[in-house]
Amino acid sequence: MSVYLHDIPLPAAQEKFKQALISAGLWGRLGTENIPLDEQAAGRVLAQPVWAKISSPHYHASAMDGFAVRTVETLSAAPATPLTLLYSAQTVYVDTGDPLPDWADGVIPIEQVEPVDEGDVPALDARRPRAIRIRAALTPWSHVRPVGEDIVATQLVLPEGHCLRPVDLGALAASGHASVIVARPPKVAVLPTGSELVPVGHPAQAGEIIEYNSLVMAAQLQSWGARATRYPITPDSFIAIRERVLEAALNSDLVLLNAGSSAGAEDFSATVIASLGEVLVHGVAVRPGHPVILGMLDLGQRSVPVVGAPGYPVSAALTLEIFIAGLIARWLGTVPQEPQQIKARLTRKITSPAGDDDYLRVVVGRVGEQILAAPLTRGAGVISSLVRADGLVVIPRGIQGLQAGEQVDVKLYRSPAELEHTIFAIGSHDIALDLLAQYLAGADRRLVSANAGSMGGLLAIQRGEAHLAGSHLLDPGTGQYNLPDIQRILPGRSIVVITLVGREQGLIIARGNPKDLHTLVDLTRQDVRYINRQRGAGTRVLLDYHLRQMGIASTNISGYSTEEYTHLGVAVAIASGRADAGMGIAAAAQALHLDFIPMFEERYDLIVPDEYHNSELLAPLWDVLQQGDFRKAVASMPGYSVEHMGELVARVGLK
Amino acid sequence: MSVYLHDIPLPAAQEKFKQALISAGLWGRLGTENIPLDEQAAGRVLAQPVWAKISSPHYHASAMDGFAVRTVETLSAAPATPLTLLYSAQTVYVDTGDPLPDWADGVIPIEQVEPVDEGDVPALDARRPRAIRIRAALTPWSHVRPVGEDIVATQLVLPEGHCLRPVDLGALAASGHASVIVARPPKVAVLPTGSELVPVGHPAQAGEIIEYNSLVMAAQLQSWGARATRYPITPDSFIAIRERVLEAALNSDLVLLNAGSSAGAEDFSATVIASLGEVLVHGVAVRPGHPVILGMLDLGQRSVPVVGAPGYPVSAALTLEIFIAGLIARWLGTVPQEPQQIKARLTRKITSPAGDDDYLRVVVGRVGEQILAAPLTRGAGVISSLVRADGLVVIPRGIQGLQAGEQVDVKLYRSPAELEHTIFAIGSHDIALDLLAQYLAGADRRLVSANAGSMGGLLAIQRGEAHLAGSHLLDPGTGQYNLPDIQRILPGRSIVVITLVGREQGLIIARGNPKDLHTLVDLTRQDVRYINRQRGAGTRVLLDYHLRQMGIASTNISGYSTEEYTHLGVAVAIASGRADAGMGIAAAAQALHLDFIPMFEERYDLIVPDEYHNSELLAPLWDVLQQGDFRKAVASMPGYSVEHMGELVARVGLK
Repeated sequence: MSVYLHDIPLPAAQEKFKQALISAGLWGRLGTENIPLDEQAAGRVLAQPVWAKISSPHYHASAMDGFAVRTVETLSAAPATPLTLLYSAQTVYVDTGDPLPDWADGVIPIEQVEPVDEGDVPALDARRPRAIRIRAALTPWSHVRPVGEDIVATQLVLPEGHCLRPVDLGALAASGHASVIVARPPKVAVLPTGSELVPVGHPAQAGEIIEYNSLVMAAQLQSWGARATRYPITPDSFIAIRERVLEAALNSDLVLLNAGSSAGAEDFSATVIASLGEVLVHGVAVRPGHPVILGMLDLGQRSVPVVGAPGYPVSAALTLEIFIAGLIARWLGTVPQEPQQIKARLTRKITSPAGDDDYLRVVVGRVGEQILAAPLTRGAGVISSLVRADGLVVIPRGIQGLQAGEQVDVKLYRSPAELEHTIFAIGSHDIALDLLAQYLAGADRRLVSANAGSMGGLLAIQRGEAHLAGSHLLDPGTGQYNLPDIQRILPGRSIVVITLVGREQGLIIARGNPKDLHTLVDLTRQDVRYINRQRGAGTRVLLDYHLRQMGIASTNISGYSTEEYTHLGVAVAIASGRADAGMGIAAAAQALHLDFIPMFEERYDLIVPDEYHNSELLAPLWDVLQQGDFRKAVASMPGYSVEHMGELVARVGLK
Repeated sequence: MSVYLHDIPLPAAQEKFKQALISAGLWGRLGTENIPLDEQAAGRVLAQPVWAKISSPHYHASAMDGFAVRTVETLSAAPATPLTLLYSAQTVYVDTGDPLPDWADGVIPIEQVEPVDEGDVPALDARRPRAIRIRAALTPWSHVRPVGEDIVATQLVLPEGHCLRPVDLGALAASGHASVIVARPPKVAVLPTGSELVPVGHPAQAGEIIEYNSLVMAAQLQSWGARATRYPITPDSFIAIRERVLEAALNSDLVLLNAGSSAGAEDFSATVIASLGEVLVHGVAVRPGHPVILGMLDLGQRSVPVVGAPGYPVSAALTLEIFIAGLIARWLGTVPQEPQQIKARLTRKITSPAGDDDYLRVVVGRVGEQILAAPLTRGAGVISSLVRADGLVVIPRGIQGLQAGEQVDVKLYRSPAELEHTIFAIGSHDIALDLLAQYLAGADRRLVSANAGSMGGLLAIQRGEAHLAGSHLLDPGTGQYNLPDIQRILPGRSIVVITLVGREQGLIIARGNPKDLHTLVDLTRQDVRYINRQRGAGTRVLLDYHLRQMGIASTNISGYSTEEYTHLGVAVAIASGRADAGMGIAAAAQALHLDFIPMFEERYDLIVPDEYHNSELLAPLWDVLQQGDFRKAVASMPGYSVEHMGELVARVGLK
């Protein structure tokens, strides 16, 4: 049997799936359960409207600690003409919540009466006096909670489809319910397939992939109110997968297959589904996530929908968001939680395939009056892009891309309030920033750093797109760090320059120095492949400065035009054998167990527009720089000096 | 021992509690747990930063199904000069995710090669050809996912204090973790106390209160990440409560006592706490919620904080939000979820005690360009006000109230997206609106109706504060419904008038008609107490119209000046014996098992500004009016006619 993969537009795919679900009678609530009204009911979805069985209060209750009276008997009381009411005959004491006696129609709060005993002396027991003296008339029904004040019997307490919150449980109990009819949670089977997969916790060899998509998917399903069952990994075998799918289908409302949804040699999802029912859609024009399968398994008695999700983790997670979140909500009889949307300005240009609905992950933050969305890496294999994402921008089919500065709608993963705690750092990458992020998280600040090189950081500040920029730009003319470039790129701006760290730059090389490298001159050897940093990176400026000083032409360095964007990227290139040497910091070498040849000391500063320097947002950052803990942690990294950490280097352009 | 209740300002109370917690070493994470990395880890809070143990990918992986090559060998390939690479010697097939062979540095996707067999014929097995023909050179490292593309070993994956989401679980697994160190969830004991309490499910007699605060509190605590244990109801006895508190404290990090926190005769919380430790604060200037106790129990080995929450359900729930939510977050080592804030315009004037921080529950919605906040009933006993609330407005100490139209900050309980689905109906109350709300919930619309009477509804539309108004205003001059008043109150506005129902109005009276009432003339009898509707209510206009017709002076009706705001309110007044008769609708009488004397037929219309009539927001409402189900449900209520439901009565002022 051959399987073809034809991408169809997303709305068409969704509609086809929906029609099949409707035909199978699976486009609505799956069933109901009667559960006791306890705290486990929170988060469940009402399968019926709830009407009040009883009123609340269900009797006239005193609203205060005080004395119940007939208000008509209080009419003559006034400040100058106190009135005495006899205990038992005319008044009785009631606690808050006590039923009002039949004959009473009001309560005088205890602090407004003078309880007296025989001879008009203050009563021994204020709650059991012989009489009370009052100095004001009482309006009928004062300080009484009449029957139904809160809830009237027969009234609608909560509508069908409502997802129960803590306070709702109180209202259900108050209106006389002890159990509640809720939607049965959908049962979803999550089936990881692939001979290359190993379970979490097993050391993975080359070619083996740690299987965690099922974990992410199960947690997603749970968060939407479904009950997920993760099955063991099934190897790539038509027979084994078919058997597993059938087993899972018998016990589930929905089967999720991951991966094997493409059309490769060992992609059995489509053929298995076809053998047990029907493949409705194979391939959807959505990025990431193309090789999605939507199908329906025919169990004779009933149909079970099946979705084949792609293997790349970002694709898998987004496939569930796109195709499954709404279905689970429908099966629960509720509406899916809509993500909050906000408008933001895109920080860089994005190209997009015209034929696809394209899901772009972005980091979002407010810098001054602007809400900015910075696109994250687009690889479908990069789960950290989803981890870092604050939201998604959907670039619809027919649009080939977006310009830098364009306004986009961001579907947020976080509350907008959280975005107000985000510090946007764009500029040079330094590992100390990772540590800083860790320490700031404890102070309710999220440090988001985008690696754009030192020069990129200054340009971002020029455009008003960053709260600060990490920079280590050596000026070849003066030998000064940062200040000349700040004056050139940010003329007229008030800028504060604060040192983060001093650090050693040098050559990152393979362990054991197999190419026997010692100085920059060695980089010109034929057998040495260099890996460079991108244009505008401080490390590249530093290299160029020293090459010029030493009279070495960059054209003589093989690999000079191959660029990486971070120190770790350079280290990875060397660790993987793609290159023999690259300029970078010692910590990056250590992270990947590489050797390091120290060469230069440099200063790494934080460049901060004055308007943010004293902001509430950045205050915790300056605190962290003074913390012994943080300084110790940074100093423990090889090649770092914290001697000048937090020092004010200069104020530029301040009035 | 005597206990005094002195209200202190909220910040002072919080500070005092905080200092005691600091002294007891309880102002930080309580402990950690090492839990397996499975879907149950979602929602837990990291107790340590997580650094990557391994890189992801942990080997160079093919990013496509295709052929691994040495890119240097592909340089001469061009469209006109295809190049042949021999299988095994120069290229091998790799699936997506396969490790790249040591010698290779790129992958050509299978769809870009021509696999050939002997004699250059197309290969029988495209993945096992004798050779491949290519027509373009390949850039080094194309279609390869290098080691660390996603995560580099040693890098920060997630910071301490981070609450794990589904995708985070994937990143933890990808970076080599099989377990994770998370904060130990705080154990909280919830102790309901009170001899008047009965558990949920037990029929409650007068004076008995269904105990549901512990249910709400436990669910709140759970939603904040704590583990709550509900204890059985303890009667009002110093000994019994003391024993229970001690038992609970031994097994918990925090004890919550509810209620008995006031200074009444049977309020033992403070004395019990004093006998086991220290009462730090008794009475906080916050409304609702005054009688809050903050204390510390001394168990010798350790201290256990204790909070006495007031018994009124709204006070109890808000006490936890104010004093406990932040503490739980601190004990978990994270920051509490901040509610989203929005600015809204208050729809009516609010007075507030100057000495208190005052928490006002509001319904929020957008009408046109305005975000409106409509205050809900303020009674601390009215849990339905919390159920209906979209958010809180905090009126700080020192402010005596807010004017109608004033801008306020609302801390939202819902996402702003949900507010966009809210239909604001202000005006006359009708039970059919409850039913309509139920049907609209299924169509993702929330109908919020504020009862302001028919005239109040028209005035709300005049001020732009409602999408529609329910109205049944009889014009005494013309005998016409609604249209004359619309023309008078909304001159120049384009208004659509659509009938909701026809209904019978009459006298609601006690069961069995003990006062032998038959006509409006009977209301003037000395022994008959009437309960009226508020000024501007259609029902009151109807009464006045007929009184005038019959020549009856309203001053002759006892209770004419006593007002209720809804039909159900009138029915409750009669059911409770506060009054003998009131004008209203039959359904309200039925809801409370009262008798009803039908008198007049009237039309109840929906008054809709033209700009909302055709809006997406209201479209589902018009659909519901045409639904057989809904009509049947309304028609089944006594005294209702659906004959004209959904009919256009008039368009007023349309250009």
